[in-house]
Amino acid sequence: MKHLDGSITAPLGFLAAGLHCGIRKNRLKKDLMLIFAEKPCDAAAVYTQNRVKGAPIVVTQKNLASGSARAVICNSGNANTCNADGIEKAEQMCAFAAQALGIRPDQVVVASTGVIGLPLPIAPIKKAVPSLAKALSREGSIAAVDAIMTTDTRRKQFAVEFELGGKACRIGGIAKGSGMIHPNMATMLSFLTTDADIEPALLYEALLDTARETFNMVSIDGDTSTNDMACILASGLAGNARVTARGAEYDAFREALGEVCTCLAREIARDGEGASRLLECRVTGAKCTEDAREAAKSVIGSSLVKAAMFGADANWGRVLCALGYSAARVDPLLVDVAFSSKGGRVNVCKSGTGLDFSEEEAAAVLKCDEVVIHVDLNENEASAVAWGCDLTYGYVKINGDYRT
Amino acid sequence: MKHLDGSITAPLGFLAAGLHCGIRKNRLKKDLMLIFAEKPCDAAAVYTQNRVKGAPIVVTQKNLASGSARAVICNSGNANTCNADGIEKAEQMCAFAAQALGIRPDQVVVASTGVIGLPLPIAPIKKAVPSLAKALSREGSIAAVDAIMTTDTRRKQFAVEFELGGKACRIGGIAKGSGMIHPNMATMLSFLTTDADIEPALLYEALLDTARETFNMVSIDGDTSTNDMACILASGLAGNARVTARGAEYDAFREALGEVCTCLAREIARDGEGASRLLECRVTGAKCTEDAREAAKSVIGSSLVKAAMFGADANWGRVLCALGYSAARVDPLLVDVAFSSKGGRVNVCKSGTGLDFSEEEAAAVLKCDEVVIHVDLNENEASAVAWGCDLTYGYVKINGDYRT
Repeated sequence: MKHLDGSITAPLGFLAAGLHCGIRKNRLKKDLMLIFAEKPCDAAAVYTQNRVKGAPIVVTQKNLASGSARAVICNSGNANTCNADGIEKAEQMCAFAAQALGIRPDQVVVASTGVIGLPLPIAPIKKAVPSLAKALSREGSIAAVDAIMTTDTRRKQFAVEFELGGKACRIGGIAKGSGMIHPNMATMLSFLTTDADIEPALLYEALLDTARETFNMVSIDGDTSTNDMACILASGLAGNARVTARGAEYDAFREALGEVCTCLAREIARDGEGASRLLECRVTGAKCTEDAREAAKSVIGSSLVKAAMFGADANWGRVLCALGYSAARVDPLLVDVAFSSKGGRVNVCKSGTGLDFSEEEAAAVLKCDEVVIHVDLNENEASAVAWGCDLTYGYVKINGDYRT
Repeated sequence: MKHLDGSITAPLGFLAAGLHCGIRKNRLKKDLMLIFAEKPCDAAAVYTQNRVKGAPIVVTQKNLASGSARAVICNSGNANTCNADGIEKAEQMCAFAAQALGIRPDQVVVASTGVIGLPLPIAPIKKAVPSLAKALSREGSIAAVDAIMTTDTRRKQFAVEFELGGKACRIGGIAKGSGMIHPNMATMLSFLTTDADIEPALLYEALLDTARETFNMVSIDGDTSTNDMACILASGLAGNARVTARGAEYDAFREALGEVCTCLAREIARDGEGASRLLECRVTGAKCTEDAREAAKSVIGSSLVKAAMFGADANWGRVLCALGYSAARVDPLLVDVAFSSKGGRVNVCKSGTGLDFSEEEAAAVLKCDEVVIHVDLNENEASAVAWGCDLTYGYVKINGDYRT
């Protein structure tokens, strides 16, 4: 497997575009994007588990019931959620895209991100879609990722190449963060493409399992959004023998999909609202994978751990505390904790008791821009990794005045 | 029922004291307190549900197994948690107090609050306890509450008088916040006294039910501490006929205890680390009380709601979002939301859809120092109230550099 430049148009058969249509006031900020597959694709998606679901989620779930799709349309600047006319407008978005592309409306995936509860301005979308369709190109993936960004400060885009049965296949993806990020089952928005040929049921399984290990292991602020979605379109144009069962080929696909989604998840965490550091919590020695995940997410989600990391303070007691209130089976007297980064490694807790470490060395480790919190539960063999970011003044500033 | 001045020494039979013993560097900050009951008391306590439990919690649970106690000793500045010699030192604290007071060590409730994972300096405690015992007085309750404060900026102390069978009885209490506050079952530290005569089993029931409706409905930062404890000592000196069964007398006791604990809980929320506003979420129309509590706690616990309140931003979509990911049964299409304060009331959402409200009026409501978030789920009759505070730069500052 190797990384490629580009993202969603790296696999064969996909074009993309993005532009400013007018939902946002800032004319320099793109706010509408389109992905188009040159031939019908197998498709799968996972969605937010929030009971309050955005209208686009409802419409996409219905459209993807067939297991196939040819296009994705997504706006930023408005979530089209908690509006009386939300479903109608999400369906209109599909209809506009379908008309411009010469496909059926039920072949379109629709998504929205932004403020909840404000009516979506549909006129600028209607007006812009024909230009958007005309602008579709392989180079358009950068404009597309720009158009889905909200408070994101950097593009999240990756692509990899791998082999299935001797044929080169590709998976590419883009994603957006960066607040209201605590995905449950699905995630923030991520759009993935592949030219591998794989049955829809397996495509869904691969996406579900991958989301569980990647996007669902990210928490920026503990708030699970109403509009989370990760979807993948598979064009099959790589020419591999269709993957129809679990086995080595499926595993290779899973590995490649896992690589793209892990890279996207890490970038989402790194670019969490106001973040100054990427935090990674590696839990080992858990009784089972679910325990390891719960433990890792609890540490990553603790406001006190996050604030300590902002201050480069090796306050490992807060890590123990977060483990203690997690759903995982944790025996405090068995737990070891260490911090590491490119600044080195410092062991701070052994068997639930503090070690005598140098505060200076610890600060040097914690001041780096990627910090790993190592937790060994010393119970059994299971492990998991979660990603997050520190809690900074910037998070408060961004969210204290988001709408106005 | 009427409010009294004072707190834990307002009921008959209790003395208190607090002083600086030397656990903290700042000689002006008291760090050790003692409460003494002139005769043996019935006693009950509820504790943190964190699996990582402070050593004092373990020792107090053992001592209170008998259902009686005569003293409480508590230090701030060090949590005596995750230390190899924690249990031994917590037992020593009981022994020092017992010796100075002429009682048995197992009649002592012990508590600690502060940094986790640093060995507790026991010598200054040993040295100070005799002076502390000599200083015991009814006026000493202020020194006692001062001694348990950590990042608290104000004293939390209340007392009420009520009648049981024609006899005046009193309940008093003190508490500390103000970070790592997301109590589960028990709470941050709260010490309560009463001169009512009530059986230990009923005393425990009253405390448990009250804690569930008061302390457990507060969240500052979602972090459940390792050292949470609320305990109550009942001297019986009021002379009422002993309460031995549920009924009107028990209800009167519960009401008075509820009043004191509600006042303490609100003060803990108001004084949350960095807080600029007290938030109260009143959920009505829930299917059951548990749903109402889950919904209220989810809104109060949302970082995004908290940050919006800091910015006086009527971003009700975040309230809907937090309801949606709570454990409560919520139909988004039935939910009404309003904000109120002494600045007025503004209805912002009806049946899950935004209302056309004046942003200026909303800002005037939200800029007050106590803001109520009203949520009507319109499902059934159950209700609950939760308390919290806004998320500010101050929280990040306090927790970004707590130890050093």
